[in-house]
Amino acid sequence: MRTTTRVLFQRVPDGLPVPDDFRIESRELPGPGDGQFLVRNRYLSLDPYMRMLMDPAWTFRGASLAPGDLMPGRTLAEVVESRHPDFGPGDLLVGNFGWQTLALGDGSGVDFPVVPRDGVPLTAWLGACGSNGVTAWTGLKLIGEPRAGETVAVSAAAGSVGSTVGQLAKAWGCRAVGIAGGRDKCRLVTEEFGFDACCDYKAPDLAGQLRDAAPDGIDVYFDNVGGEMLDTLLTLLNPLARVPVCGVLSTYNARGEYYGVRNTRLIFDRRLTLRGFLQSQFREHHAQARDELATLLAAGRLRSRETVAHGIDSAAQAFIGMLQGA
Amino acid sequence: MRTTTRVLFQRVPDGLPVPDDFRIESRELPGPGDGQFLVRNRYLSLDPYMRMLMDPAWTFRGASLAPGDLMPGRTLAEVVESRHPDFGPGDLLVGNFGWQTLALGDGSGVDFPVVPRDGVPLTAWLGACGSNGVTAWTGLKLIGEPRAGETVAVSAAAGSVGSTVGQLAKAWGCRAVGIAGGRDKCRLVTEEFGFDACCDYKAPDLAGQLRDAAPDGIDVYFDNVGGEMLDTLLTLLNPLARVPVCGVLSTYNARGEYYGVRNTRLIFDRRLTLRGFLQSQFREHHAQARDELATLLAAGRLRSRETVAHGIDSAAQAFIGMLQGA
Repeated sequence: MRTTTRVLFQRVPDGLPVPDDFRIESRELPGPGDGQFLVRNRYLSLDPYMRMLMDPAWTFRGASLAPGDLMPGRTLAEVVESRHPDFGPGDLLVGNFGWQTLALGDGSGVDFPVVPRDGVPLTAWLGACGSNGVTAWTGLKLIGEPRAGETVAVSAAAGSVGSTVGQLAKAWGCRAVGIAGGRDKCRLVTEEFGFDACCDYKAPDLAGQLRDAAPDGIDVYFDNVGGEMLDTLLTLLNPLARVPVCGVLSTYNARGEYYGVRNTRLIFDRRLTLRGFLQSQFREHHAQARDELATLLAAGRLRSRETVAHGIDSAAQAFIGMLQGA
Repeated sequence: MRTTTRVLFQRVPDGLPVPDDFRIESRELPGPGDGQFLVRNRYLSLDPYMRMLMDPAWTFRGASLAPGDLMPGRTLAEVVESRHPDFGPGDLLVGNFGWQTLALGDGSGVDFPVVPRDGVPLTAWLGACGSNGVTAWTGLKLIGEPRAGETVAVSAAAGSVGSTVGQLAKAWGCRAVGIAGGRDKCRLVTEEFGFDACCDYKAPDLAGQLRDAAPDGIDVYFDNVGGEMLDTLLTLLNPLARVPVCGVLSTYNARGEYYGVRNTRLIFDRRLTLRGFLQSQFREHHAQARDELATLLAAGRLRSRETVAHGIDSAAQAFIGMLQGA
């Protein structure tokens, strides 16, 4: 039988999502038609951007979700049946197959075929060597343009993208300064991910902590958070600093009340560059990025921590936990 | 006799400068030594950036002025005596000779030698074909990267830089939308400078005016103002829009109270690029810029309005008037 269990978008969350903002259903799938293939989703990546897709206030991917739509998401999928010339049973793919156990594809949603590699666990192709890693690599390298000896700061440094940014900064000869919430996360950032320093935004005087951690100022601020933290960082940036803007975590669960950033005049005064981006803008660099990330990972120079929840029924709760920083 | 009359910086203004923030003195100059030359300043350009140099809150040019320092500024200068091999009597130069009638130079402060050109008045080399024009050209072309058919918006559109930005946008096949304060300035922007539309920020509903003036959205916002106007413009920018940040007029006379920009999350959502700049970052493009500007000016396709005050004694008052938008 080809029964897929699917998680659907149900309604726009009021702040942090709750389980009732989602709905689970089962559905029979037909066999793959000509030019189609059937995949079993082995792993689903849960990412902050999904919260934005649940809210019409965000437009970066076009229209937001309508009630009853399948929750979209990248999966590591295994082809189980195929009537498509390019894909055969046993093939592993990363693609946009959504929050469901089985899916039909025609090749259009495939990001890349996975070629297993020694020292690279399969789940890494969804994380450190997949979309999150590629986001870190493209934003840091192509927008941040860090030069050896410069200082790179990154917010949400314990997260999947942030931890990779700092490790790439180190691999490229920079000083890496993380920002995370709480002592435990900061310890993870320095001890596990090898950053030179980590500042705790839940502790007093983040600006003072950052001045101590970045005595030569900050040349690249990889921004995952926006809002008040961006305001503080602006005051610590060196002239000609670059700010890849990768996300705005501080606002994902906001209710239309946005913090006013007071130090934007420094964009002129210090000739800063702020640039919002999605990794999909840089497709021609993805293969190079994945290769460098996998090489670092296999060599033990790139670490990633994965939280794995089991079963499609637990996806919504795992997603909510991720948004809460669990 | 070689008596120069000089305007000195006296103290940090509290908001809008007043005449007592300056001091005038006369001083005897020695004859030019070996490798030096003496110039007579024929025209001095008065520009908003000078207000920032009077205030330690701004750092973009290094240290701010100390009491007793000569007020710096670009002049159109004529060499009157020379013991320098590259400069002879009668040569015309644009350079940083300051707020004074006579100056000694050694060549280090010279921006470019002026080669008089039919249809280009001498003062234009300080304005539309000089630093202001080059600022407009470099910011719009190299950061704004406008493509024919796109919409370019510019604030302070009646000003020297802003009016040139809109006219270059037109020359390069774009729709030009100005923002200026009051009906008279808006009329100047459309009728004299040939913009497609001009929105009056002193009239109600600037956002609504801009939506009408830019029905396809805004692809480049050349920002001279910052603050609340930037906040409004952010909501009207198309995905992948570019924002050359050329100045922050809204804050020059602020007293440390800066407006909080609430829509910075759109930098991510719409993948915007904001970049602060000085034309001095793009020296290798200056000659090309001046040539294109002079060609447009001589052909009647670039207009500029100059306000000329006479006599070094009137410089401070003329500067204050410029800051007030006179």
